[in-house]
Amino acid sequence: MLQPSATDLPTSREACRALDAADPLAAARAAFVLPPDVIYLDGNSLGPMPAATRARLQQALDDEWSRQLVGAWNGAGWIDLAPRVAAGIAGLIGAHADEVAVADSTSVNLFKLLGIALRLRPSRRTILTETGNFPTDRYVAEGLAGWTGEHRLRSVDRERLAADPASAIDDDTAVLTLSHVDYRSGAMHDLARITAAAHARGALVLWDLAHSTGAVPVDLEAAQADFAVGCGYKYLNGGPGAPAFAYLARSWHAQARSPLTGWFGHREPFAFAPDYAPATAAGQLQCGTPPILSLLSLDVGVQLLAGLDGAALRAKSLALTDLFIARCLPWLGEHGLELVTPQAHAQRGSQVSLRHARAWPICQALIESGVVGDFRAPDILRLGFAPAYLRHVDAWDAAERLHAIMRAGIWQDARFDRQRRVT
Amino acid sequence: MLQPSATDLPTSREACRALDAADPLAAARAAFVLPPDVIYLDGNSLGPMPAATRARLQQALDDEWSRQLVGAWNGAGWIDLAPRVAAGIAGLIGAHADEVAVADSTSVNLFKLLGIALRLRPSRRTILTETGNFPTDRYVAEGLAGWTGEHRLRSVDRERLAADPASAIDDDTAVLTLSHVDYRSGAMHDLARITAAAHARGALVLWDLAHSTGAVPVDLEAAQADFAVGCGYKYLNGGPGAPAFAYLARSWHAQARSPLTGWFGHREPFAFAPDYAPATAAGQLQCGTPPILSLLSLDVGVQLLAGLDGAALRAKSLALTDLFIARCLPWLGEHGLELVTPQAHAQRGSQVSLRHARAWPICQALIESGVVGDFRAPDILRLGFAPAYLRHVDAWDAAERLHAIMRAGIWQDARFDRQRRVT
Repeated sequence: MLQPSATDLPTSREACRALDAADPLAAARAAFVLPPDVIYLDGNSLGPMPAATRARLQQALDDEWSRQLVGAWNGAGWIDLAPRVAAGIAGLIGAHADEVAVADSTSVNLFKLLGIALRLRPSRRTILTETGNFPTDRYVAEGLAGWTGEHRLRSVDRERLAADPASAIDDDTAVLTLSHVDYRSGAMHDLARITAAAHARGALVLWDLAHSTGAVPVDLEAAQADFAVGCGYKYLNGGPGAPAFAYLARSWHAQARSPLTGWFGHREPFAFAPDYAPATAAGQLQCGTPPILSLLSLDVGVQLLAGLDGAALRAKSLALTDLFIARCLPWLGEHGLELVTPQAHAQRGSQVSLRHARAWPICQALIESGVVGDFRAPDILRLGFAPAYLRHVDAWDAAERLHAIMRAGIWQDARFDRQRRVT
Repeated sequence: MLQPSATDLPTSREACRALDAADPLAAARAAFVLPPDVIYLDGNSLGPMPAATRARLQQALDDEWSRQLVGAWNGAGWIDLAPRVAAGIAGLIGAHADEVAVADSTSVNLFKLLGIALRLRPSRRTILTETGNFPTDRYVAEGLAGWTGEHRLRSVDRERLAADPASAIDDDTAVLTLSHVDYRSGAMHDLARITAAAHARGALVLWDLAHSTGAVPVDLEAAQADFAVGCGYKYLNGGPGAPAFAYLARSWHAQARSPLTGWFGHREPFAFAPDYAPATAAGQLQCGTPPILSLLSLDVGVQLLAGLDGAALRAKSLALTDLFIARCLPWLGEHGLELVTPQAHAQRGSQVSLRHARAWPICQALIESGVVGDFRAPDILRLGFAPAYLRHVDAWDAAERLHAIMRAGIWQDARFDRQRRVT
């Protein structure tokens, strides 16, 4: 994998343009609809629309739903859509196709897999997570533990888990649930190492790949991971609220017992049998009727990503974040900004996060300048570098504009203190 | 409410056309995209596309997702979409807007509400349902009971529940979960009477309104119902796999404890707080990020239905099913067909179901004739009469074509014995 050292980094905008011209992923950018004059560094919140999505949705409305009506379930292949998308995602995360289900939201999938984990470790009462894990990961675990009344959620700092996972996992830990890449800092865990440490303590591991899949190499099979979930609307570009995915390792297919047993997870949904019999493999993680329009949109995004070279994506992600970091480091400190994202490649996802007590107005000023980043409470400016459609010039220009905003104190203008956006 | 007696029914196709011309709902038909030459009697499986859906989805793709990107959550109002759709549905089921959440699938919503019910009746261990309840209703209850290991699913015949509900509900029944209108027979329960009987035994009641909402009047408040779920893609015409809804009566808002606690059900999702605090009212039943494209499509369908007169919908539904039944009754028996749907209006939903050992090929022959009905295993021909877009001539013609198929034995042709469709 290409890992340019600092001396390889382009030192002019022209050099960036030359790198972009030689980029093996250059053609992928044209597959997305990107507004002119916007540098979109928030694809880790909502990925942009693939150009093919529009025609696919039009076909679904005009030729499938409105003309074929209920017959489209078979005639247009809706019934096979979720497994098709799952197979595409499997290729991105080092899984077999029969280990992945596309269904529901990340939250609901977390619930299913935590429920399975607790029943596989019935004598253990603890769900272990990170203090700063993404809120819904914490909420779902807390809600499940509170609902059973027999379990508890325990939290440890991410840094401690990264440094010495074995010390954080005790004999009461049924399942350890972690984000592979942290949504705020962009720090990436060593998935294989932590999985092995948990297994050594008899605990299972559930990985949230929301900020990994599509941007960072993941090999669940090599890591012998038990469970994973991930998001369809970030680096997979599936559209707002696109369905999520769930990974269930083959080793657990036979023993898994999901608390959520809907008809699409039945062995023969359309036999209308009175009793539940789980579908084989990860198919048992499907639940209700899938939202086809959103799922069709996700299919376009997944097939697009699945057609790109994963090593090239990772190399470019690191090149872009290296470049942005290198351009910013010389002046960050003098403007009260702190680099939160690790500089070590092995510990970095596909984003750069900067800390500042006034990150909110800084983020707003940056957006006004045409660089769309994101604010994460209380003090994080988060910039996602999706390698499928971003260019070296984008990283260069984003750094320049942020520098200009900080240098001139533009962010201190009262108009940037307006009420916070929702997302 | 208009309830025409048999003598009021039209006795010619011309009379049907006259009724259609005078129909106060006639204009509503134009709001749907219906293929020419098809009489669509399967809107209770997948409702047809409203004409406005196409433009709304195009706007979402072209103006919202692709141009506003992540800003569309606020800029295009996606963040308020689920409560907006919920308010529209509330008006159709006799609920306050704060008692309804639109989220997830019917299956997942069943799970949440059953989970709440079990915690509200901790000393009781039985989930009671109908033997022939819709499969996913049974599966979800069975899965939950099996997962806790402390509960069980008990089934009683629908007829016994209808005749003498008190006798079927024992002191161990935490929650009774029933379909208001049966998906196979079209029989409708007395929602208020059964709810009262369950309450008298200390049990809670969860109603599945999948085959009611949008076609049959429902008044949950008058019935003092506890919980309900319903489907977005049948009579609400929300599109394939559209999100479902969940009703949580105000009386339970404070005490409810859902097992499924995702970030969209948090009081302040975007505060990114580490601990869960449920949203007020039914908003706590939201869970993960909603699938916006499917939800936008549902919004169009719900606002369309919400704009129609509920009494007129019910009157026309009964007029159409009365007409179809009256046209078929004289010859059903001689062709081995049996009317399954109750003739009494108070016990009838918005469909007519006929039993025949060879219902499958009969259904296929009917579809070939341009009348799209549905087969439900093992022996039901199911014909849904959605009052928002069907006409008296449709009921007339459907009966004529079915008669022709039976009279000539067309359904016995080998081509109708091909493999069963999925849905």
